[in-house]
Amino acid sequence: QGEDVVAGVRHPRPLEEMREVMPEVLDQLYEIRAILEKHYRDMQDIEFTIEEGKLYLLQTRNGKRTAQAALKIAVDMVAEGLISKEEALLRVDPAQLDQLLHPRLDPKGDYQVIATGLGASPGAAVGKAVFSAEEAEERGSKGEPVILVRWETNPDDIHGLIHAQGVITSHGGMTSHAAVVARGMGKPCIAGVQEMKIDAEAKRFTVGDIVVNDGDWISMDGATGRVILGQAKLVAAGIDENVNAVLSWADEVRRLSVRANADTPEDARKAREFGAEGIGLCRTEHMFMEEHRLPHVRNMIMSETTEEREQHLAKLLPFQREDFVGIFRAMSGLPVTIRLLDPPLHEFLPNYTEVMLELERLRLTGADAEKLQEQEKLAAKVKALSEANPMLGTRGCRLGIQWPEIYAMQVRAIMEAAADVLEETGEQPHVEIMIPLVAFEEELRRMRVLVEETAEAVLKERGVSIDYTVGTMIEIPRAALTADQIARQADFFSFGTNDLTQTTLGFSRDDAEGKFLTYYLRTDLLKSNPFEKLDQEGVGQLVIMGVQKGRSVKPQLKTGICGEHGGEPSSVKFCHRAGLNYVSCSPYRVPLARLAAAQAVLEEKTAVQTGD
Amino acid sequence: QGEDVVAGVRHPRPLEEMREVMPEVLDQLYEIRAILEKHYRDMQDIEFTIEEGKLYLLQTRNGKRTAQAALKIAVDMVAEGLISKEEALLRVDPAQLDQLLHPRLDPKGDYQVIATGLGASPGAAVGKAVFSAEEAEERGSKGEPVILVRWETNPDDIHGLIHAQGVITSHGGMTSHAAVVARGMGKPCIAGVQEMKIDAEAKRFTVGDIVVNDGDWISMDGATGRVILGQAKLVAAGIDENVNAVLSWADEVRRLSVRANADTPEDARKAREFGAEGIGLCRTEHMFMEEHRLPHVRNMIMSETTEEREQHLAKLLPFQREDFVGIFRAMSGLPVTIRLLDPPLHEFLPNYTEVMLELERLRLTGADAEKLQEQEKLAAKVKALSEANPMLGTRGCRLGIQWPEIYAMQVRAIMEAAADVLEETGEQPHVEIMIPLVAFEEELRRMRVLVEETAEAVLKERGVSIDYTVGTMIEIPRAALTADQIARQADFFSFGTNDLTQTTLGFSRDDAEGKFLTYYLRTDLLKSNPFEKLDQEGVGQLVIMGVQKGRSVKPQLKTGICGEHGGEPSSVKFCHRAGLNYVSCSPYRVPLARLAAAQAVLEEKTAVQTGD
Repeated sequence: QGEDVVAGVRHPRPLEEMREVMPEVLDQLYEIRAILEKHYRDMQDIEFTIEEGKLYLLQTRNGKRTAQAALKIAVDMVAEGLISKEEALLRVDPAQLDQLLHPRLDPKGDYQVIATGLGASPGAAVGKAVFSAEEAEERGSKGEPVILVRWETNPDDIHGLIHAQGVITSHGGMTSHAAVVARGMGKPCIAGVQEMKIDAEAKRFTVGDIVVNDGDWISMDGATGRVILGQAKLVAAGIDENVNAVLSWADEVRRLSVRANADTPEDARKAREFGAEGIGLCRTEHMFMEEHRLPHVRNMIMSETTEEREQHLAKLLPFQREDFVGIFRAMSGLPVTIRLLDPPLHEFLPNYTEVMLELERLRLTGADAEKLQEQEKLAAKVKALSEANPMLGTRGCRLGIQWPEIYAMQVRAIMEAAADVLEETGEQPHVEIMIPLVAFEEELRRMRVLVEETAEAVLKERGVSIDYTVGTMIEIPRAALTADQIARQADFFSFGTNDLTQTTLGFSRDDAEGKFLTYYLRTDLLKSNPFEKLDQEGVGQLVIMGVQKGRSVKPQLKTGICGEHGGEPSSVKFCHRAGLNYVSCSPYRVPLARLAAAQAVLEEKTAVQTGD
Repeated sequence: QGEDVVAGVRHPRPLEEMREVMPEVLDQLYEIRAILEKHYRDMQDIEFTIEEGKLYLLQTRNGKRTAQAALKIAVDMVAEGLISKEEALLRVDPAQLDQLLHPRLDPKGDYQVIATGLGASPGAAVGKAVFSAEEAEERGSKGEPVILVRWETNPDDIHGLIHAQGVITSHGGMTSHAAVVARGMGKPCIAGVQEMKIDAEAKRFTVGDIVVNDGDWISMDGATGRVILGQAKLVAAGIDENVNAVLSWADEVRRLSVRANADTPEDARKAREFGAEGIGLCRTEHMFMEEHRLPHVRNMIMSETTEEREQHLAKLLPFQREDFVGIFRAMSGLPVTIRLLDPPLHEFLPNYTEVMLELERLRLTGADAEKLQEQEKLAAKVKALSEANPMLGTRGCRLGIQWPEIYAMQVRAIMEAAADVLEETGEQPHVEIMIPLVAFEEELRRMRVLVEETAEAVLKERGVSIDYTVGTMIEIPRAALTADQIARQADFFSFGTNDLTQTTLGFSRDDAEGKFLTYYLRTDLLKSNPFEKLDQEGVGQLVIMGVQKGRSVKPQLKTGICGEHGGEPSSVKFCHRAGLNYVSCSPYRVPLARLAAAQAVLEEKTAVQTGD
């Protein structure tokens, strides 16, 4: 009989039907279930059959369950005294917890669903429709939320997917390129929306009479496959009482502190809600990208003299200060690590090929001399700043060292904001200033002098005293290899495992994902994407070396990680074993990291007990 | 009196004048000189004065000397039994030896000198005149010899200087940008050639009536500042008997083997002349760049299917085989390490911006549809292959893994050439096949299988047996960190310290030199250019780690270095201390490396004796 069910010859029937047909056998089954669940200390998935009124058990095993159910079962079993809190913690899969915490559509909202496709990667998103990967990158990298709409995607579109909130394709299925990649990135995807007619050249799509043009707002629900017109309201998904119970047990157990990466007051508040114990990475470049600031940034970059540059920087100062005031308010009482400007300057300028094409057009269509000259000047500057390998070029502290006025402005903005918040609330913000891309001790020494001189000047002007620390990213192999030297200048180390992975493996992420890395994963040359799961054998050695060498000079050196790995369970556990003080990840991943950090402690105990 | 001389008040007079004025004092001086030189065991630079017939010695010190003189003195003193061979070896500065070995104009030649400027960096060169850094890079990187002619250079021109044989400027002096950079690169430079009128837009220069156009051959002598019309004949500079004597002593002492980097039979012969004991790096990409091969290479890259790609590769095979036949002949009896294709494929295609500009021109000037479509196809392919950071992109073994047919063709060409040479000479070439840019053991394992299968097939076809080994470059930090794993698949390791420096420091050489790295050197943030002198504190750790971990698995693992550091004295000495088996450098630097390797042994002895 059992084999018939598996073979599909016979179909099982609902359990409660037995109540009428053979109640005594049902009672017997419930009794056995109770014994089994007590024995296995877990919900059981029992296969049985009844032949001539006699109950035969075929198989029993621990039951599979949804994320919500898993949490509820674990919490219930603790309440019933069947398992300990520690056992409960080990039973929840951090990845399942993550699912629960994706933003979703506000269930109370009213939406105009215009089409439905396959729900290919869960989560909801809101953004402006864009029709090419280039556009997605161009606008997304400047902080505009965009949703990429394509017939289908291919590896060349990866750079666009990275910068989009989500992706919708009119073609393809659950295993299409877009679907696979989006799931990997944890971004929503709807695939195969057949009603949608896309005209990529004209930059629009139509569904029946409805026309959605480039830049129009749309929303999407990647779980149900619904495409929605306009800006839908999103809500952070369910931190319910069961989640809270498990996370509070995790907090009792874990030793690793969990912070969040957040660049705005909004993100900071969200992070705090999810239990972040500080901000581990506040990037300042997104603040430079905002529409009304970009002209000042561009003028600053195009400046011919230091004086001119300082004038434009002075215009950016109030914006930066406001950003920091908001973040310090939101994180009152908790540490905030602010990284000074990191990306190469040409990221703030238009694309070189585009500039040259415009110049050619102006030339061939006989534009007036002044316009031509202006475009030529722009082209020359963009060319001068363009680099063969920007990832390894003039960025990070290499900017601050050559143009100290840029970092001086940022430090001034930070310290003025800190003074404002101190005066307003009576409480000192916990300021940690972080210098990126250090490879040599002398780089950090010079930048530390600059930070201290600027900060002291501000504090003196304001007549207040505020503690702050100065540390560095460890994101270049040489920094890890010479961490004993660099530690002499640093109050803390933050391992930037994204860049450290790029340099240690020689993988440019932009060029690897979707191209050779995808090939490597598909052909099992690699078991996992090293940008998702930390490469413990390679990059991990440098992290351990960095911690050990750093602490050989400063035993109390604070160390953390702020790459995306900070929100991936196996990497969080590695960070615990490596002796880091904290991980920092995106706000939505904070609960997952809290749980994984607790599991790391419990697994360590088990390993010791079994002598592993 | 002595002070008067220093102050310039009195002027010294020729020594032989004394013969007539006061012969007995001269005899006395010569006597004292003999005693002093015997005592100090070195040529003495003696300051003296004579007052009222009495000789006063003011000072004596070891004399300064030219490269030639230094060698002659050292050899003479050994002959006279004043110093040992070992002392003589330690007295010759490898950098001076290097000067002697730059190519110079054939003294027997007849030249049309058209102008003379400042001899700003020694050495002679022959190349086609080019008038922009872009052009120098474009043509130079394809193996065309070019000489960059500019009003003056600036940091943006570095990428052109790298690919030029030499540089001539009509402006500037001995400390101009071009002069400083060229000396650093060991390339000839003539600065401030005022008679030369350059029209960079029209791509030509004139000297009086003479017009030199873009692509015309010119020659230059960076020592004397002479600009010459046409292709002058160059000769390798003086390996005279003194040089030979010192080098033969060096060969008795050194343990480090010295090989050369050579891509052509011509280079291989030159290397052998300079005493190279093999080829440590034979790059195969220059062979792809040659004019009559490039169309096949481009067709191969543009292929849509594996079959199509194989057809184009088959056309390249005879060319590659001929290259290898020539090299194996030249290096008979010595090992030849051949590196399979390394650079990203788009290096073989035209520049993307140029392609797009041409497309725009065709569109705006109403070109015919077919031409337009062809250009569009080219643009799409170039775009698909273009990368954000090509240095960290699809190159090295990542090419061979995705398109095994490329490496298979190269291995076939190598083994067929080896079989040809074996049949011709009766002697087996010593073939070492090297896989570039390995970061994971599995990459090398797969490539090793491919190499072995292909090689065995060729040997079976030809009915011969030829030994060959398969090894890898260690040029990515991860490869050094996991050298114990990688060694399982490797017969040898060759440290590619150029790329290893780029990844370990996070410095893109193209973007660092002339930009932030120049700033770092100028402001003393760094003491030396890590692309010239190996960064022993950082990159050096990875080299040592790579050797130790590799040998922990294979105690006999052969290890070498093939970056440019292999020809820099302090780096050669480091390689000796790190326990490498060989260094490999450009042919002209082989003598220098032989000397430095001997000095490393002698310095080691001294250190042991003095207990350092």
